[in-house]
Amino acid sequence: MPFPSNPQTVAVIGTGTIGASWATLFLGAGLSVRASDPGEGAEAKLRAFVTAAWPSMEALGQTSGRSAEDALAALSFFATPEEAAIGAELVQENAPERIEIKRETYAKLESALAPEVVIASSTSGIMPSELQAEMKHPERLVVGHPFNPPHLVPLVEVVPGKLTSAEAVEAAMVFYKSVGKVPIKLNREMIGHIANRLQAAVLRESVYLAREGVASMADIDLAASMGPGQRWAFIGQGKIFALAGGVGGMAHFLDHLGEAVETWWDDLGDARLDSETRAMLTEAYGTPTEESFAKDVAFRDAALLRRLKALSEDSEG
Amino acid sequence: MPFPSNPQTVAVIGTGTIGASWATLFLGAGLSVRASDPGEGAEAKLRAFVTAAWPSMEALGQTSGRSAEDALAALSFFATPEEAAIGAELVQENAPERIEIKRETYAKLESALAPEVVIASSTSGIMPSELQAEMKHPERLVVGHPFNPPHLVPLVEVVPGKLTSAEAVEAAMVFYKSVGKVPIKLNREMIGHIANRLQAAVLRESVYLAREGVASMADIDLAASMGPGQRWAFIGQGKIFALAGGVGGMAHFLDHLGEAVETWWDDLGDARLDSETRAMLTEAYGTPTEESFAKDVAFRDAALLRRLKALSEDSEG
Repeated sequence: MPFPSNPQTVAVIGTGTIGASWATLFLGAGLSVRASDPGEGAEAKLRAFVTAAWPSMEALGQTSGRSAEDALAALSFFATPEEAAIGAELVQENAPERIEIKRETYAKLESALAPEVVIASSTSGIMPSELQAEMKHPERLVVGHPFNPPHLVPLVEVVPGKLTSAEAVEAAMVFYKSVGKVPIKLNREMIGHIANRLQAAVLRESVYLAREGVASMADIDLAASMGPGQRWAFIGQGKIFALAGGVGGMAHFLDHLGEAVETWWDDLGDARLDSETRAMLTEAYGTPTEESFAKDVAFRDAALLRRLKALSEDSEG
Repeated sequence: MPFPSNPQTVAVIGTGTIGASWATLFLGAGLSVRASDPGEGAEAKLRAFVTAAWPSMEALGQTSGRSAEDALAALSFFATPEEAAIGAELVQENAPERIEIKRETYAKLESALAPEVVIASSTSGIMPSELQAEMKHPERLVVGHPFNPPHLVPLVEVVPGKLTSAEAVEAAMVFYKSVGKVPIKLNREMIGHIANRLQAAVLRESVYLAREGVASMADIDLAASMGPGQRWAFIGQGKIFALAGGVGGMAHFLDHLGEAVETWWDDLGDARLDSETRAMLTEAYGTPTEESFAKDVAFRDAALLRRLKALSEDSEG
């Protein structure tokens, strides 16, 4: 099945936070976007999101020369998924995380799409084999899970279900690269894909240490961000340790520190979100006010943009 | 016991990679450094390290106005720990990771030090209670574990042993802050302190996923660095999730996504460094050549410097 190798028109189905961010990304890549969402005032919210996000896209040089007005002119909005799907060469689906809603949405989309159009789901929690079970052309369904917000963070996890074709996976990989993302292909579906599992692993050990009284959550967060986090923004843990092995590489690292690593592994803890843990966590991070939350978010977003700029400088050499 | 509140003269005992990096940091903070190391040509290597590291210190604005020559003039080198200790107001110990060598070193140091001088050990693998067991003044011993390289990465983990005094911990915290670090205090000793445990948790899940065939180590590394790693460089995982809860904070996050987190926790895997896993890891990262290793290290160090600059911009607002 020949999937379009270079989609220029993309449908974005569901335009909440994730869908709106995808739309912004695609518009920044110079594509035409056909969107749909049943929510009250959804089109206005979507256009406001794109407008608000555009300065970040400009700061990162990801607008394909478009102004915010140009971008909005390349965005069209439809009452239903099947209308938005007309002429789309790839669909990014961001419907609510409920299997029956997604399956209904796929039925509508398939009524309007040629068979050789990939449907990529942003789902974080539903396995692609479940998503595709009732589809007419299940081979076209992949998970294309972004890391929030998709218009800024590079990662997309591309996950096949049992019935997905290799060609659909490849088409999704090529497409996401073409819009500037860093897609990674999972060989098979897995709860939480990869990135959320790694986040969960960090959180679990953090919560374990806090519950054991070793340090506060705030201090454990700081230990991460002021220590290993400085490298995690550009290099993975395996490669970090391989480089720590010097010119002897991972083999030397394992000879020298493998025993220490296993000692740490043996000692890592478990955690449950029981009522005491929930209370500890809620207490640790406090209850935001509108003002403190806005301040935190502004800090987070400015700091994220700084790292993304650094990331683009990394690849310049 | 009144520990010096603002040490101006610091002894650095053991000047391998970690000790030389500490010496660079202290010189950058405008202190006098008295160093000692029994290794062949140790003084020349130390001076070469400081000289080579100075441009990074200048790039980060952490030289207290000193040129590399000024810095080297504030560095003196001695044949023995007890000579280096004379007049020191704090000792940073970086002897080999063997308990008997460290205990011998402390005996020599204590013969020359006033009781109210903190000895901070850079150890990653030995518990402070073991280190201090035979000391004359065990209350002065803390672990002050840096994250490599200490002259660049902000984190220092300050860990008391069972006999350490609260005043010694506080003196170490104040001192590390005064030289520009971000010290965090552990309430009690723990294998791997905190940061190495978090690294171990990420590596364990990464290795598990690779061994399960979900993706290659290279792709799992990418999923981390191109996704959650973008935030890990400035914010911890707990705070990341608290902000994901919106203005409802961690409480809202737990109501909304606590179940998903527990599902991920339940599904996280285990890993062992058995021979197949060692072979997989060694294969995954290949065997460096001198040239490829030098290139990787240059990339890592340039990228790290970019994140540290971004970090200093974060705090400017």
